[in-house]
Amino acid sequence: MKISCAKTDLMIGINISMKAVSAKNTLPILECIMIEAMSTGIKLTSNDTELGIETYVEGEVITPGKIAIDAKLFSDIIRKLPNSDVMIETDENNQILIRCERAKFNIPGKSGEDFVYLPELQNTKMVTLSQFSLKEVIRQTIFSISDNENNKLMSGELFEITGNHLKVVSLDGHRISIRNVELKESYESTKVVVPGKTLNEIMKILTGGVEDEVKIHFSSNHIMFEFENTKVVSRLLEGDYYKIDQMLTNDYSTKIVINRQEFLDCIDRSTLLIRESDKKPIIININNSNLYMKINSSIGQMDEEIEIIKEGKDLMIGFNPRFLMDALRVIDNENISIYMVNETSPCIIKDAEGAYVYLILPVNIHAANR
Amino acid sequence: MKISCAKTDLMIGINISMKAVSAKNTLPILECIMIEAMSTGIKLTSNDTELGIETYVEGEVITPGKIAIDAKLFSDIIRKLPNSDVMIETDENNQILIRCERAKFNIPGKSGEDFVYLPELQNTKMVTLSQFSLKEVIRQTIFSISDNENNKLMSGELFEITGNHLKVVSLDGHRISIRNVELKESYESTKVVVPGKTLNEIMKILTGGVEDEVKIHFSSNHIMFEFENTKVVSRLLEGDYYKIDQMLTNDYSTKIVINRQEFLDCIDRSTLLIRESDKKPIIININNSNLYMKINSSIGQMDEEIEIIKEGKDLMIGFNPRFLMDALRVIDNENISIYMVNETSPCIIKDAEGAYVYLILPVNIHAANR
Repeated sequence: MKISCAKTDLMIGINISMKAVSAKNTLPILECIMIEAMSTGIKLTSNDTELGIETYVEGEVITPGKIAIDAKLFSDIIRKLPNSDVMIETDENNQILIRCERAKFNIPGKSGEDFVYLPELQNTKMVTLSQFSLKEVIRQTIFSISDNENNKLMSGELFEITGNHLKVVSLDGHRISIRNVELKESYESTKVVVPGKTLNEIMKILTGGVEDEVKIHFSSNHIMFEFENTKVVSRLLEGDYYKIDQMLTNDYSTKIVINRQEFLDCIDRSTLLIRESDKKPIIININNSNLYMKINSSIGQMDEEIEIIKEGKDLMIGFNPRFLMDALRVIDNENISIYMVNETSPCIIKDAEGAYVYLILPVNIHAANR
Repeated sequence: MKISCAKTDLMIGINISMKAVSAKNTLPILECIMIEAMSTGIKLTSNDTELGIETYVEGEVITPGKIAIDAKLFSDIIRKLPNSDVMIETDENNQILIRCERAKFNIPGKSGEDFVYLPELQNTKMVTLSQFSLKEVIRQTIFSISDNENNKLMSGELFEITGNHLKVVSLDGHRISIRNVELKESYESTKVVVPGKTLNEIMKILTGGVEDEVKIHFSSNHIMFEFENTKVVSRLLEGDYYKIDQMLTNDYSTKIVINRQEFLDCIDRSTLLIRESDKKPIIININNSNLYMKINSSIGQMDEEIEIIKEGKDLMIGFNPRFLMDALRVIDNENISIYMVNETSPCIIKDAEGAYVYLILPVNIHAANR
């Protein structure tokens, strides 16, 4: 194999590939990137068996061939080369010669006979959306997946397509995050649970342009994201996702409209007086046209008032401050509406258009204050 | 006490003060910032007994007084307040009320009777230089102080003033870094050793303008840096600093002129093939108009040639790559001159003007290759 490509192009490809390289694995081949020089171009493949990535790098194939190369060492070497053309050449003993200007590296490669390529997806359904939208819906929901290994399904997100509508849901037993996106066309209905790790990596790889599209292919076991020169394939999580519709009531007895940033900053300040280990809730007092927050801890006291527009009853309710902040941080609106029933029922933060719904369970104030 | 000041001004003062706050100390007062509201203004003082800082904050003194306040909590609260005026008020029980817009914090303070103020310096000598110069000479030498607790003097830097000339020296037993600065005026001669920690903190506090001056006062036990609204006082290290002049020979049998960045990048690349634990030197082969570097390790091989201008004999010599890189990184010149005698004598990197001298001991290649 002999190829030549610009250092910067190669580095982009390597950075994408690295997202699917096993860190420390009992199978050394999973720590490798497979380079294939073919008539169709230079392809890098990496696969940690959960997540697999194929990406093409611009460059010239001088002699076709393939080689598996330790991903970390390869990435380190290329990154430290001068900003110039890189020549990669292998011999019959799988020794790899990397040249760039007057620097020459000689490192061992592997034939890669035991390399695990990406699975071919059968009977797929497909939707198209902008990279920007996909990146946004992930960012706005990924924080409420669970890292609890006992609830595998909670470690992923539901992607549900109905007609021209994509719904993305994550939940961790204390809260639910939902984002709804209108698609440009209607598609065949489908419903899958995508691992959180996959979505985290996809979010990093996507450049995120509004004009740049990403095609999502679904099979019964896999999901594939296809964009620009790259394909990312991941296993799906098996099982029926949680039924959440019955929790999303439209009934409320208190509705407030509040400035999102003011509320977020106020909660953020209040947490200064709460030791992480205390797990104390913040207590919010809704009283006519004010939301009143008061913290009284061993560190000190804090109180603050925020003007609100209130509909319905006054209410005192306690929350884990982190859960509120996580949701407030990812909403773009200047003002938000919060719907509450009573001090023991979940509050719901949602917009009129139904683009987002964040449901958060309150903390029992009386138990917490005991 | 009752004061009012802009959040941003207060935050600047707190950030400076924090550099002399003890992290975890058996004396809780050392974890505090002392706020003094006086006719001369609002003064913040912090002192971890090695390093002490006094800084004035713009603002209004409504009622004079003083209070000691936990530095970390104070800093966290002020940082998270809205960008507006902050009012700080104490009562007779040393309770502190901090108000900003509609946020109110109530935290306990200390009378600070046991607070350790900055020492008054007696019989001082003084020099003036630009903040930029001071910051630069520290940055360009601080990397070669030693963290070996047995050689206390090596953990500091020599500041030596002779006439209108400031010399700053650091050494760790393997290398010496020297920077020389011309001062605008002549001063009384003096010679002190300043703790490395102090210099690291000073470097962070100085804004670094070429036009901004810093006055340095020396007493027999202390050094004080005075600039803008701030005074930083530190103990000096006691003892006679190492005599280095006899090591700085002007004799050489090989002199090379090399592009600094090319040499630095080449060494940087070569370290990829050296495991930290191996402590292998890089071997440099100077041969006519080329510097030739070759690495052969269990990870792989690398070789590279750099064009040089050579004077004198060919030479093969080994170095700890980190020592070379540390020096090359802080030199500003495009091309540098390196002077060598033989494979066992130190190499010296210096400029014609004598602004900098970096001496680095070589590694015995034969011992290393055994």
